[in-house]
Amino acid sequence: MNDFKWSKTEKKIARAAFEKAYQSECSDIIGKIRVKAKKISEPDNIWRFHDFLTEKRHEIDEKYDYRYSKLIMVFARLINEGWIDISDLEGLEGDKIDRIEYLINF
Amino acid sequence: MNDFKWSKTEKKIARAAFEKAYQSECSDIIGKIRVKAKKISEPDNIWRFHDFLTEKRHEIDEKYDYRYSKLIMVFARLINEGWIDISDLEGLEGDKIDRIEYLINF
Repeated sequence: MNDFKWSKTEKKIARAAFEKAYQSECSDIIGKIRVKAKKISEPDNIWRFHDFLTEKRHEIDEKYDYRYSKLIMVFARLINEGWIDISDLEGLEGDKIDRIEYLINF
Repeated sequence: MNDFKWSKTEKKIARAAFEKAYQSECSDIIGKIRVKAKKISEPDNIWRFHDFLTEKRHEIDEKYDYRYSKLIMVFARLINEGWIDISDLEGLEGDKIDRIEYLINF
């Protein structure tokens, strides 16, 4: 899993896809925040809302790991969750795409 | 500070004032959440918003301490911060009111 070399061009493609996924997922969270914020009417709702954000923050911190040794797994997950498409990785070498597709279907 | 006895009636008064302050402060936080939620436009804003809520939660947890040994200090603080008024404690014995007023002016 950790044996891939990343060319300069591939690093650019990877960084762009990674950023696209991060922005998409954060936009989704922002939408949820707005909806939830409107519904808060009593103290307990505040703390549940805070729990929701804490959970999201941990999830995002854990998921968006830009180490080259982890990127194949990260991209498979981001595609599975719908934040990017395999076409966003166009330009990566075939072996990497194959590994990602294998993981997606796993 | 810990030597006061609380009668049944005083406990009722104390509980009502404590709840009133808690509800007032939480309403204020809810108002702030609504304003801040509307202004979130990028990922970093989400995490700063989460930091704000984490800080508020710690502050509330630390402040709203309903141990009878702490209540005099708690009420002085809640009055100082404007969440309740000294009149909300009407019915407590004079020594307690004197101690609270002393702390408010301290």
